[in-house]
Amino acid sequence: MTNRLHKIDIIFNNSDLDVVAIVPGSNFKYLTGVNFHLMERPTLLLLKKNTKPVAILPVLEVDSFKIHNIDADVISWQDKDGYIDAFYKAADILGKVGSIGVEGQRMRYFESLALQKAFPETKIVNSHSLISKVRLLKDSKEIENLKKAISISEKSLTNTINYIKENKTEIEIKNILIQEIYKNGAEGLSFDPIVLAGSNSALPHGHSSEYEIKKGDAILFDFGAMVDGYNADITRTFFLDFADDNQKDFYGTVLKANLLGIEKSLVGNTLNDVDDSVLNSLEQSRYSEFVVHKTGHGLGLDVHEDPYVMRGNEEKLEEGMVITIEPGLYNPKSLGVRIEDDVHITLGVPEILTSFTKNLTII
Amino acid sequence: MTNRLHKIDIIFNNSDLDVVAIVPGSNFKYLTGVNFHLMERPTLLLLKKNTKPVAILPVLEVDSFKIHNIDADVISWQDKDGYIDAFYKAADILGKVGSIGVEGQRMRYFESLALQKAFPETKIVNSHSLISKVRLLKDSKEIENLKKAISISEKSLTNTINYIKENKTEIEIKNILIQEIYKNGAEGLSFDPIVLAGSNSALPHGHSSEYEIKKGDAILFDFGAMVDGYNADITRTFFLDFADDNQKDFYGTVLKANLLGIEKSLVGNTLNDVDDSVLNSLEQSRYSEFVVHKTGHGLGLDVHEDPYVMRGNEEKLEEGMVITIEPGLYNPKSLGVRIEDDVHITLGVPEILTSFTKNLTII
Repeated sequence: MTNRLHKIDIIFNNSDLDVVAIVPGSNFKYLTGVNFHLMERPTLLLLKKNTKPVAILPVLEVDSFKIHNIDADVISWQDKDGYIDAFYKAADILGKVGSIGVEGQRMRYFESLALQKAFPETKIVNSHSLISKVRLLKDSKEIENLKKAISISEKSLTNTINYIKENKTEIEIKNILIQEIYKNGAEGLSFDPIVLAGSNSALPHGHSSEYEIKKGDAILFDFGAMVDGYNADITRTFFLDFADDNQKDFYGTVLKANLLGIEKSLVGNTLNDVDDSVLNSLEQSRYSEFVVHKTGHGLGLDVHEDPYVMRGNEEKLEEGMVITIEPGLYNPKSLGVRIEDDVHITLGVPEILTSFTKNLTII
Repeated sequence: MTNRLHKIDIIFNNSDLDVVAIVPGSNFKYLTGVNFHLMERPTLLLLKKNTKPVAILPVLEVDSFKIHNIDADVISWQDKDGYIDAFYKAADILGKVGSIGVEGQRMRYFESLALQKAFPETKIVNSHSLISKVRLLKDSKEIENLKKAISISEKSLTNTINYIKENKTEIEIKNILIQEIYKNGAEGLSFDPIVLAGSNSALPHGHSSEYEIKKGDAILFDFGAMVDGYNADITRTFFLDFADDNQKDFYGTVLKANLLGIEKSLVGNTLNDVDDSVLNSLEQSRYSEFVVHKTGHGLGLDVHEDPYVMRGNEEKLEEGMVITIEPGLYNPKSLGVRIEDDVHITLGVPEILTSFTKNLTII
């Protein structure tokens, strides 16, 4: 991945932050091309406007950083010495700093404490959304990666469905799905896949169990393949052998909301507009009590990222955003249905990146 | 997994904390049996001595929590309302609180801000090690899970080796390894496997690339299967087709340090003792400049957890701890070698859970 450090200007031009601190994760990878794991050893990139970046690195990560040829002051620290001196050295290099913006949903508490210790007069500000904004609009290479990830995901789902039979457990089916995802060339999973059957499908983030699928059960798949760091995220809900009229009506209500959400995914509409129309549609149905979550989220190097498709978010849709549209209804006594597409906002009608059928499917 | 909430007394008996706040992750799972992901929606368990636990939950996770029959006050919040009111309600229920201990390496900055806002007079304390201590000594069920995870890992490694040929890429080999891990029944990966060949093996946490393995290359595998949340973590380094005398000597130096580390893993020795003897052995070899990391870490529901096998850690080894012994040497110009075993501390000689051969292996 390429170095996009020049994009930090988006942050400085939209705030009065003096420094931005990035920990390993999507922003780190996007800006530097370096894909570090977030571990117990503090690893930070400190960016100050018009100043050479300062990287605080455990010594064992220095070579992984240097092969990317980033022009930065590297301060490395050894396990035996601890990390706090590296933070003091960074403070010396950066001089007077009024405020440091951090990724509040990514930086851990202990890293914030080390920062505050080394910069005692500095205000630490949760700037998660602001920082993530650098990744808000996807370029063609990013869309291409998402398309590859989605293509692998959909092929894997097709192959997995062929394997499903009565009495297979959720865990068995999930395991086959994962093998398929790797067989089809993914570099990883977007997240631990959700495969839930029967009334388990009503747990929006439930974990697969030893439950054996039965005829007439709903079976919900929520999963994705990862390609070059980019995450697919697709949900489909099927029925084994048959679906009764109640199930069909329940499914149809979610599908209607999904289509409405896509229809509203237009440049200039707000995220609130999209969520509000989707939720209104569900809330005005006979299943209003079974609504438990918002419509979706941004998708890219993180599975959940800005912009969030939720009421109250008055941010406007822009060309290049990628969001999920994933309405769901969850009746704890019988079934949950969620239908999730990945949608690329374009100047005209949105480009629906996911293409797996949404017609009610009996397997 | 069972509910072990009574174990919080270990924390209160070893501190003057009034409340402990747990976020999704290993401690949460260990104490409650509930396996939530750490996501953008704050999810917290607040534990106060002799008081019913208070759980702050996004509404879509409430059912997943309730099926575990935990006797707790549940405060749920909806996306459309935001989470901060749930924190205020928790503060009302808990009353006067002098200090809250948090998992500093797990809790994110934005969650700490919400806590501080709802408990303005309360001191938030990074109590990561103290809280993780509840999981320090493994019971027989936990050891059994680790053994299953290790067995799957070693079988998968054996099968993957058979696949390696000149010109296979690191990524191809890694992909096969992952498929094997799932085929052999893992529920997940301990972490994204590290498969590095040639001079790439000198990057301790490098990512697999399109590099094609050549005759005479070292190839390093660092990976593990997960079973019921428990993580195997094993590293082996092989050579393709042949190893020259320098490579053999380099390998032998690491192997000697590995064996020494295991020999020192005795009840009553400190973690410092173990790391110090391993590092001395490496530092006194002709390869002292290629030492870049400590000897190991605790292993269980987290891949890296207390106790850390490092100089300066005067904590004593106790029966029931599980640690990794993983010395390595890294010559950026030619090769890295790391040999990692998972070691269960027992009253007599340690039980080495990993059994894959450490004899220099040509494949």
